[in-house]
Amino acid sequence: MEYDLIVIGGGPAGYVGAIRAAQLGKKVACVDKERAGGTCLNWGCIPTKALLKNAAYQNFLKHADNYGFEIGEVKYDFTKIMKRSRSVSDQMAKGIVSLFKGKKVDYFVGSGMVHKDKSVTVTDSEGKTQKLVGRNVLIATGCVPKQLPGLKPDGKKVLSSREALAITEKPKSIIIVGAGAIGVEFAYFFNAFDTKVTLIEFMPSILPVEDVESSNMVRKSFEKSGIKVLTETKVTASEVTETGVKITVAGARDDSKTEVLEAESVLVAVGVQANLEGALAEDVKPELDRGYIKVNDRYESSVRGIFAAGDIIGPPWLAHVASHRATEAVEGMFVPGKQPHQVNLYPGCTYCDPQVASIGVTEAKAREQGLKFTVGKFPYAASGKAVAAGAPEGFVKLIIGEHGEILGAHIVGSEATEMIAEIGLAMNLEATTDELISTIHAHPTLSEMVHEASLASDKRSIHF
Amino acid sequence: MEYDLIVIGGGPAGYVGAIRAAQLGKKVACVDKERAGGTCLNWGCIPTKALLKNAAYQNFLKHADNYGFEIGEVKYDFTKIMKRSRSVSDQMAKGIVSLFKGKKVDYFVGSGMVHKDKSVTVTDSEGKTQKLVGRNVLIATGCVPKQLPGLKPDGKKVLSSREALAITEKPKSIIIVGAGAIGVEFAYFFNAFDTKVTLIEFMPSILPVEDVESSNMVRKSFEKSGIKVLTETKVTASEVTETGVKITVAGARDDSKTEVLEAESVLVAVGVQANLEGALAEDVKPELDRGYIKVNDRYESSVRGIFAAGDIIGPPWLAHVASHRATEAVEGMFVPGKQPHQVNLYPGCTYCDPQVASIGVTEAKAREQGLKFTVGKFPYAASGKAVAAGAPEGFVKLIIGEHGEILGAHIVGSEATEMIAEIGLAMNLEATTDELISTIHAHPTLSEMVHEASLASDKRSIHF
Repeated sequence: MEYDLIVIGGGPAGYVGAIRAAQLGKKVACVDKERAGGTCLNWGCIPTKALLKNAAYQNFLKHADNYGFEIGEVKYDFTKIMKRSRSVSDQMAKGIVSLFKGKKVDYFVGSGMVHKDKSVTVTDSEGKTQKLVGRNVLIATGCVPKQLPGLKPDGKKVLSSREALAITEKPKSIIIVGAGAIGVEFAYFFNAFDTKVTLIEFMPSILPVEDVESSNMVRKSFEKSGIKVLTETKVTASEVTETGVKITVAGARDDSKTEVLEAESVLVAVGVQANLEGALAEDVKPELDRGYIKVNDRYESSVRGIFAAGDIIGPPWLAHVASHRATEAVEGMFVPGKQPHQVNLYPGCTYCDPQVASIGVTEAKAREQGLKFTVGKFPYAASGKAVAAGAPEGFVKLIIGEHGEILGAHIVGSEATEMIAEIGLAMNLEATTDELISTIHAHPTLSEMVHEASLASDKRSIHF
Repeated sequence: MEYDLIVIGGGPAGYVGAIRAAQLGKKVACVDKERAGGTCLNWGCIPTKALLKNAAYQNFLKHADNYGFEIGEVKYDFTKIMKRSRSVSDQMAKGIVSLFKGKKVDYFVGSGMVHKDKSVTVTDSEGKTQKLVGRNVLIATGCVPKQLPGLKPDGKKVLSSREALAITEKPKSIIIVGAGAIGVEFAYFFNAFDTKVTLIEFMPSILPVEDVESSNMVRKSFEKSGIKVLTETKVTASEVTETGVKITVAGARDDSKTEVLEAESVLVAVGVQANLEGALAEDVKPELDRGYIKVNDRYESSVRGIFAAGDIIGPPWLAHVASHRATEAVEGMFVPGKQPHQVNLYPGCTYCDPQVASIGVTEAKAREQGLKFTVGKFPYAASGKAVAAGAPEGFVKLIIGEHGEILGAHIVGSEATEMIAEIGLAMNLEATTDELISTIHAHPTLSEMVHEASLASDKRSIHF
């Protein structure tokens, strides 16, 4: 079996790259140990969004009287909630398999190992092997959750994001270590379903990559809803006990202030690390950087013909960045004259409530870089649509350069993750606030706030 | 009292124009018979959005078991639902009054009549008058609902959209005449709360200005949820009876096929007409066209110094178009060298479920105009975010010109009305599908479907 391209890994980098190559008329194989879709579709973005929809409904139910509803006893079947999440993943994963069929990508379930000659050995779960011959190989094996010493995931008391998506019983209490997007989303979910949540972050604010105003608004909302948030806090010891876990924490820079926290479970969400397990034969030694494959501007590793894309080439570890990188890598391989695009502009989203979405620099970063900028900000409370929908919490904040160009955008609130798309396009096209202002935004929508924040950067907001 | 600008009408054209002029350092008065905010804020866009949020929650409650919830008896207090909607309007209207204060617009409650010398007589509800002297006048008196013969709104059996927002009891059955955005939104709302709804439209499809695929999808969804939809149907007779209304309908082009419909109430939503009642003194006779004030490209009427903007200058009757027109008119008056912009590109939104949003040409219109185009379409059912949110109904459809430019966009489904903002910017900037494709859209979001539909127009959709 000879292929123009063999892709190892069937996640958002791998399957997208494989399909794109097939669309370009190439013969393509895609190999994944597990079912197609990768972490994102099976154990990340997609199943968590199903859970978060449940959490949003649960929070509505708690306040349904505000909307004129009188609701009898509300029960929920936690197993059913988790099952819905799994079934969404199941459905989407099946979708990928039929896409592979329809778009003529050969899909192999098994562990793929690349050899120096660009052949790939596929070993299935029963140990049977087959050899695929390739002209090019794209490694897209992604990342796996980082673990903490003494806290090996057991699916019950110790969870990574993966195990957290497969539990069938709701823990009464949970300690979440790490307040990045994953930790914050699970904190919101578990809290909605009345698990006692403690959220621990080493950095001074939760969602530390976000603008501090965004982080602060989410923290305030979390604390109001009963989540205990500890920032500038590190884990110094941990112990799995008969009934749960004991986590000893201390100040990030002050070991003397220790506290022992106990809970039924701990979720470790302290980031990810490169996953190359079994992917490279002994004679294949691409240059690595902290475990990640180093690539040139064509996404090619130091081994000619072996390319890499997605999380395995390092941060940002985002599905949409992974897909984009893989597309660029593949087009670079097969489209004559194509100069692959490097990713330096991408949105980031957290789907708790209020949602957080951002792109470009934060205000702090803009200051740090010595940029000349103004800030245009508009609150959800002044948006008719937000108030009508009962979602007056949030803001749109734009960081605007000297020439009216958009340097960054930070949105907190209902549908922030959809609204960021317009700013993404604006920044990609190097549009100015004048162009956002001259664009007629539908009334009443939340996206009007992008228009208003643009006006605000010039001190001429209408509705605030 | 001398003003640089006197605005008659405090709706989305009037109050926005007034605030903009004040921002430009002008002395400004705004006169409105009723409280500020106009139809949109008090009797249109805003209070309906509050009701539609209730309807969406009600529809969730009917299917809450799909999400793993077991909910006891659900009751709703219809009066409370209507009250929430009114209180949203109250809050936003108060907001406008404080904006007027903060931005130094003098606000007069009363009927404003403009004289030839640009003075305006304000007559309050008690008949007291005062005279304002102005250098320029902006007429922004908007429109009022059209009535049907024999169906004068009485607030109970016969409703216009205005009365429908003030009812305190839910009708058991309602006939809605006219399936534009207003009729369709009320049909969705009343049906959610178990009123028997019959929706009548003269044209072949509901939402007749929308792409026929959009209309068809909403119709299908409406019929599935129990709404009776009659298209190509006209009202030939109507009668208010002791218990409700009797409406006789016939085929739009076939008077012989008549049917008599009965219901507790009828909502007349057959469009709007110009509202100049009491606004013009006898000596002021601007040129009119079917009741609308004709304006030149500076939004000036045939009477020098008397400008007009908003619905009173004719279609499209949309709040966001009104605000834009008023801003342009005012900047044309007061910003040296400013050439006011004419509105020819604007989104249109309907907030039923599934939502409908569009901008630019429909497929039929593109064909009619002999344009060369391709269609790029992507279904919600293939979006991970849509499936995870339990909203797999809908599509994104782009009409793409020869050079990759976007001629039109039609979105049906969850958050369609937010997603249209990105396309609005794209069209305003004359962006191409290549530019939409090179923009990284966050995963998992609904807005990724804009990216996918762009790919689809080039037959290289990844996920479909």
